[in-house]
Amino acid sequence: MFIYYKIMRFKDEAKQDAIIKATVKLVNQIGFASSSVSKIAKQANVSPATIYIYYQNKEDLLVSTYVDIKQKLSEAILKDFDDTQPIKDILRGFWFNAFDFISSYSDNFQYTEQFANSPYSSLVDKKEVEKYFEPMIEIIQRGKEQKILKDVPFDILQIFIFYPIMILANPRLCANFDCTEKNIEIAFNMAWDAIRA
Amino acid sequence: MFIYYKIMRFKDEAKQDAIIKATVKLVNQIGFASSSVSKIAKQANVSPATIYIYYQNKEDLLVSTYVDIKQKLSEAILKDFDDTQPIKDILRGFWFNAFDFISSYSDNFQYTEQFANSPYSSLVDKKEVEKYFEPMIEIIQRGKEQKILKDVPFDILQIFIFYPIMILANPRLCANFDCTEKNIEIAFNMAWDAIRA
Repeated sequence: MFIYYKIMRFKDEAKQDAIIKATVKLVNQIGFASSSVSKIAKQANVSPATIYIYYQNKEDLLVSTYVDIKQKLSEAILKDFDDTQPIKDILRGFWFNAFDFISSYSDNFQYTEQFANSPYSSLVDKKEVEKYFEPMIEIIQRGKEQKILKDVPFDILQIFIFYPIMILANPRLCANFDCTEKNIEIAFNMAWDAIRA
Repeated sequence: MFIYYKIMRFKDEAKQDAIIKATVKLVNQIGFASSSVSKIAKQANVSPATIYIYYQNKEDLLVSTYVDIKQKLSEAILKDFDDTQPIKDILRGFWFNAFDFISSYSDNFQYTEQFANSPYSSLVDKKEVEKYFEPMIEIIQRGKEQKILKDVPFDILQIFIFYPIMILANPRLCANFDCTEKNIEIAFNMAWDAIRA
């Protein structure tokens, strides 16, 4: 019985994963407005009824896909996170992890960027998304308190730590960037120059 | 005759302007795929035939709208550009001008961000867009040559000078940022710390 239950759960997660992948693929191809639940179901090779088991409607599916990608991004950034390291090393870890995730899954990133600039973004529970990024936020706060980072508004620090690498890792926005480890390190040291006290 | 011609030209530009405004408004509301030429014509209060005077088809209209906004952005950034000033002052001018333009016309910026992440972006004549930004590119090159800016790949310098301010100026991406002149100056000085030699 227990094994049966586990297999069922596994199957469910695989299905949800296929639905989210199909949503990303279709929205990137034809946009939010044209991506209907029935088209997404077809792309995911499931029935529309299956989608309605997991999601209330199209809006719920689009928003959940966004939140799911943000959660995966936060998990990727926190890979090998060691709270006891110096702040600079922790932030360098975040930087390289973010680069790996975004350049490996640029289709996901294309979806979240479009989503953030779409009217659907107002439907996101921002508190839920922020929760995933709490460890990063705490590190920045700690850096400010310990006067390792500049005493400037949090949003400005955050932008210099997280946005440049998102642009560099996105082949659509930065086609000419030579993604060597050396260049990613150079860019990190520039971000560090921007934020350090 | 000359006056008549000028009035005609003026009318044409006003119409083209209305078409571009309508394209931005509609795409931001309902996305690229659903924004048909007939819907854009209705929004702009012109006939579809009028749109086809200026644009070959929907793709041409979407791409031209993108290029038009990029041109206006470059003109805004270059406002009061004085080639004889020190490089730091020139870049500070670009920074504040970019902030003003993006925060005043965030709907335009929402369009270009969606566009850059859409399949249409491959249709843009990148050389034409780069042409508008040539004066900025030259300043960065000169800064590198004079060893005022770091000797690192051009793309990395560019990202630190132009992207953070685009994020800060965009209320959709940075809702909590307190847009005081002081904070914009703080952010500029951080970008400067990142890029200066």
